Amino acid sequence: MFSNVSPPDESAKQDALARQDRLTKPAGALGRLEELGVWVASCQGVCPPKPFTRPRVVVFAGDHGVAAHGVSAYPPEVTAQMVGNFLAGGAAVNVLAATAGATVRVVDMSVAADTSAEVSKSKVRSGSGSIDREDALTEDELTKALEAGKAIADEEVDAGADLLVAGDMGIGNTTPAAVLVAALTGAEPVAVVGRGTGIDDQTWMRKTAAIRDALRRARKVSADPKQLLRTAAGADIAAMAAFLAQAAIRKTPVILDGVVSGAAALVAEELAPGAKMWWVAGHRSTEPAHKLTLEQLNLEPILDMGMRLGEGSGAVTALPIVAMATRILAEMATFDDAGVSTA
Amino acid sequence: MFSNVSPPDESAKQDALARQDRLTKPAGALGRLEELGVWVASCQGVCPPKPFTRPRVVVFAGDHGVAAHGVSAYPPEVTAQMVGNFLAGGAAVNVLAATAGATVRVVDMSVAADTSAEVSKSKVRSGSGSIDREDALTEDELTKALEAGKAIADEEVDAGADLLVAGDMGIGNTTPAAVLVAALTGAEPVAVVGRGTGIDDQTWMRKTAAIRDALRRARKVSADPKQLLRTAAGADIAAMAAFLAQAAIRKTPVILDGVVSGAAALVAEELAPGAKMWWVAGHRSTEPAHKLTLEQLNLEPILDMGMRLGEGSGAVTALPIVAMATRILAEMATFDDAGVSTA
Repeated sequence: MFSNVSPPDESAKQDALARQDRLTKPAGALGRLEELGVWVASCQGVCPPKPFTRPRVVVFAGDHGVAAHGVSAYPPEVTAQMVGNFLAGGAAVNVLAATAGATVRVVDMSVAADTSAEVSKSKVRSGSGSIDREDALTEDELTKALEAGKAIADEEVDAGADLLVAGDMGIGNTTPAAVLVAALTGAEPVAVVGRGTGIDDQTWMRKTAAIRDALRRARKVSADPKQLLRTAAGADIAAMAAFLAQAAIRKTPVILDGVVSGAAALVAEELAPGAKMWWVAGHRSTEPAHKLTLEQLNLEPILDMGMRLGEGSGAVTALPIVAMATRILAEMATFDDAGVSTA
Repeated sequence: MFSNVSPPDESAKQDALARQDRLTKPAGALGRLEELGVWVASCQGVCPPKPFTRPRVVVFAGDHGVAAHGVSAYPPEVTAQMVGNFLAGGAAVNVLAATAGATVRVVDMSVAADTSAEVSKSKVRSGSGSIDREDALTEDELTKALEAGKAIADEEVDAGADLLVAGDMGIGNTTPAAVLVAALTGAEPVAVVGRGTGIDDQTWMRKTAAIRDALRRARKVSADPKQLLRTAAGADIAAMAAFLAQAAIRKTPVILDGVVSGAAALVAEELAPGAKMWWVAGHRSTEPAHKLTLEQLNLEPILDMGMRLGEGSGAVTALPIVAMATRILAEMATFDDAGVSTA
């Protein structure tokens, strides 16, 4: 289902590294901004890199059966309500994207309520299975979800998206995310369980038990990324994993968000090895499983601001920094241009 | 010379805290973005806060006699060359500001060469004294520098600036910055000396010796912020300190930059106690004295990206995040607006 991932362009990277040293600043003085600019140039295959013209956020929405068993602070109907909020432009990611120059698309993969026709074309089912006791998806549903995620990446790239973000929306979705992270890093349930939207201690105990039960089922298939998604993820996260894999195959840079996007990314790297070369980590979430995810992917987050909202919010908050890094490399004067003496 | 600093508005702060909890996200889920939005509302004295319309960077340029004694990787003529680069729009801060929606003004306070009339109206002298062996400024020059910094803040606020950044440009200027930090925190020379623009070990030893000698002179006057500036800073840093103090007096929020801006801020807090309530720290520089500065001011940096350029670059890199925090608080839908269920 997934082609091979090509690495970002080595020649553009070398050109970018050399250009950074000719710009009117001490070598390395812009720290991470310089690294990010080099990465963008290598992804674009050209130096100087081009400013982003169509950064695009795709929010994958879905409900999770496990939410009915008391693992979240919010009732499941919030997922569908928030889809409406995204469409009306009132959610955090809408405001962040508007400020950062990105646009937002929301896709209902498996919301447990009817949503408008414009967002439900790829819908696979109404709520994924309760992973503590049953598979999230059937084989057929898994295939549909993966194909949808892949097709959405293709659509966006074909429509000109030059940077992608995968956001999540789904009450209960940090439970499958934690299970995926535990299954792929070998961590124990208590090491991956987090407070999600802000759960109390009773809910935390129920969530930990659900993760434990789901993980018992997930570990049996953890060597097979598709079966892992089918058993322990959901249509939303499966589509997101496929989207992240296909973005890399289509040579399009991605800013990863928090724990749900990170869990999908861990699986995407299994689906399409090398995909992570096309990703940067926008931020470090407060969810403990996210820290493990970033370590496993060997990605250093750009921001660490105590965020834990999802929706792509952390990634979009980092977007202006990636955009600035790109323009620095493209637009700063060189020592020669500016007639400035070198060290 | 400086009026009392009023604190940001407590009533707007309380309104902002209450509003954050009504927005369609779990309470606290946007972490630092929520805190920053509350801070902006309290600075503006209104909730919801208004998006910034005229963020303004003022780069204070000046040479330092100590640079002739081998403390920098770059020759002193680079200061004047970089003033030209700022005016031509080719420096890092120009590109960052253009991306972040800010504008840049450069002021020659004490460059050791002639600069264009548009930037040299406030010029106090040609290069400040070599602080390892003589005072940076005379009493008269100090007064002129402070009055210039204060007047520039007034001009910018009167012209509509709603957020200010003080940037620095001056070969050798991390030496006086380190001396000021050591004098006001009690640190030893080796704890504050950094690599600046990227100096080698020989230069590092000369710089440490210069800091040691200057600090011997500075400690005698460290209880008097004006005399400290006169003895151990320079016209550029003195003007910057006055600018930061006056910005607070004029109730205008400031994003601080790195070690030079931080050293000026430490002195400004002495000149106008409470000024720091009007500041956030844009980033943590790699300069060791900057870490001490942030601890002393009790400011947590927004970014930590290994930057060490100055010019206001770190502050401007953080500007989009402060802007996003402001718009989040102003523009997100509430649970009531969006018909979303609460926890």
